[in-house]
Amino acid sequence: MAAAESRPAMKSRNLIAIDAMGGDEGPAAAIAGASVAKERFPESKFMVFGDESVCRPLMAKYKQLSSDCDIIHTSEEITAEAKPSVALRRGRSSSMGMAIQAVAHGKADAVVSAGNTGALMAMSKVFLKTLPGISRPAIAGLIPTRRSESVFLDLGANVECSKRNLVEFACMGTILARAVLGVVRPTVGLLNVGQEEFKGKSDLQEVANLLRRYDQHFEFKGFVEGDDVATGTTDVVVTDGFTGNVALKVMEGVAQAYSDFLRRSLRSSLVSRVGALLASSAFERLRLKVDPRRHNGAMFVGLNGVAVKSHGGTDSVGFANAVGVGIDIVKQGVNDRIISDLAEIDLAELE
Amino acid sequence: MAAAESRPAMKSRNLIAIDAMGGDEGPAAAIAGASVAKERFPESKFMVFGDESVCRPLMAKYKQLSSDCDIIHTSEEITAEAKPSVALRRGRSSSMGMAIQAVAHGKADAVVSAGNTGALMAMSKVFLKTLPGISRPAIAGLIPTRRSESVFLDLGANVECSKRNLVEFACMGTILARAVLGVVRPTVGLLNVGQEEFKGKSDLQEVANLLRRYDQHFEFKGFVEGDDVATGTTDVVVTDGFTGNVALKVMEGVAQAYSDFLRRSLRSSLVSRVGALLASSAFERLRLKVDPRRHNGAMFVGLNGVAVKSHGGTDSVGFANAVGVGIDIVKQGVNDRIISDLAEIDLAELE
Repeated sequence: MAAAESRPAMKSRNLIAIDAMGGDEGPAAAIAGASVAKERFPESKFMVFGDESVCRPLMAKYKQLSSDCDIIHTSEEITAEAKPSVALRRGRSSSMGMAIQAVAHGKADAVVSAGNTGALMAMSKVFLKTLPGISRPAIAGLIPTRRSESVFLDLGANVECSKRNLVEFACMGTILARAVLGVVRPTVGLLNVGQEEFKGKSDLQEVANLLRRYDQHFEFKGFVEGDDVATGTTDVVVTDGFTGNVALKVMEGVAQAYSDFLRRSLRSSLVSRVGALLASSAFERLRLKVDPRRHNGAMFVGLNGVAVKSHGGTDSVGFANAVGVGIDIVKQGVNDRIISDLAEIDLAELE
Repeated sequence: MAAAESRPAMKSRNLIAIDAMGGDEGPAAAIAGASVAKERFPESKFMVFGDESVCRPLMAKYKQLSSDCDIIHTSEEITAEAKPSVALRRGRSSSMGMAIQAVAHGKADAVVSAGNTGALMAMSKVFLKTLPGISRPAIAGLIPTRRSESVFLDLGANVECSKRNLVEFACMGTILARAVLGVVRPTVGLLNVGQEEFKGKSDLQEVANLLRRYDQHFEFKGFVEGDDVATGTTDVVVTDGFTGNVALKVMEGVAQAYSDFLRRSLRSSLVSRVGALLASSAFERLRLKVDPRRHNGAMFVGLNGVAVKSHGGTDSVGFANAVGVGIDIVKQGVNDRIISDLAEIDLAELE
């Protein structure tokens, strides 16, 4: 039930629908985040979906935001524990459901939510539908690498993936890398357990052969391994949603553990503490480089509308970045590019 | 073709077969590593398999090692690029093949190699056979966590795994955690994309149910996610070899990237450099904590004989640790424990 064509790009409007009731910090982080985004993108406008009695007083604190923001009262919300199927049945009038429908009905250009990922994806699929030519949407993230940043997908929308799904992910990841990272002809790697051609899952060998055939818009670098992700060997890393989700969370866990080890080591002696104080600007630079808030905002790609998932545990700074990701995708006309790129290649034969 | 019973434990012998021709640094790292291990475990003895004309002069440098070490000349070696099938056909008289056979024939207690992982596993399966009751051997690693260390398996032996395989991995990982980490009743987690029971692969739901039934020797904590690995939420983390291999390499990559960011940040100003100098003991502590050489030595479990894989890129310090892992497993009688634990539960019904 894919829509016939993409929703018209409304580049001049920049109207973002905010689900204020998602995430650990709820409306406080979402509204403060929208305010930070408003300062950064003065042309942006907002629709905030949530409990008006909570949102209205919060909003009053942010003068610039208030002038370009409507609050749409909703009395229901999707909990973090709700199953996607339950969200679909009962979530239509929730803050999340209403925010997605605002995009579906052309009232907003993008939806940003820090709520339940499964529910957000399930409702986005139903309300926004998939883009023509795309069989499954994916979740894509921008991850920090030693080189710069890479687009990594799928981060968890599809626990099991067909060969066609992975080829589509490569095409969509390429367009994101062009639009968001500004790379003209992105390199693409397929995540596997070995670079040699005889290693790994047999399915992935076939996907690699397909990617060699469909490489009009990207340079396929073959298989990459887990360590290539942080190295930044390719601009785009393609994998199934199970492996991608595990890999993303492993990265978060290791970065936290490393920070923790570093902090504990530096506190272990007085001389180290003095040293740490002197080197504090260096630690600040490091903190900025690995700050997960700076890379917050996972993009749902392949949908006929722009939806961005903010990390549930983030604060206003992180939420503002997720809003920035949404604005970027709208401005760059990512969905139109996906349609035109996919029109050039025939994936139907992969069914 | 599993052997009828495990090879007798030769606890007093501690005779280690070294494949000297594997790894990036070849005999130099292997022999220097054996020498470090000999100092650490004075009761250990060695058989070194490799090119005698190269090994003999290297050995001469290490007096203590020389007194308890035979060199067995081999003129062939398995290359890093060799396919496992080729290694099986032609590798019988290679340094790796001969070292494994020394264990198979009861001449040595454990084999340690820094060579080609696929070849080492393939030949170990053929020469050592699997333990009774085990359908597939796995590769297990000890990984550093915020809490201490955890046993993580499978790290790549089985790209695709059955439910029975995963249950066996949990049992074997438990025994390793008891033997190597000294935990009386280890906690076990099954790696998945969500902790909620309705998330993730449907197969994993069934495996979780089985682990709840077979929990005589461990405490099953349910699903864990990628970030739990570095946190150390459970003593044992079970997953298939594809996900495990990707996760392990992602960890290595992120740790390297983090070190790299830290180094570059600290060099960016004179004051930071002075601070870094003062805090150098703290950085040394951090380096030790995350030093991959300290955690080197992946254990092949489920084989009727002890085989340890050293990282191909490690040096003598790392290689010595891999030897230490082999000695530990032999001393603790891990294989006998696997047989007796598995005899108590009936996995045959999982076929």
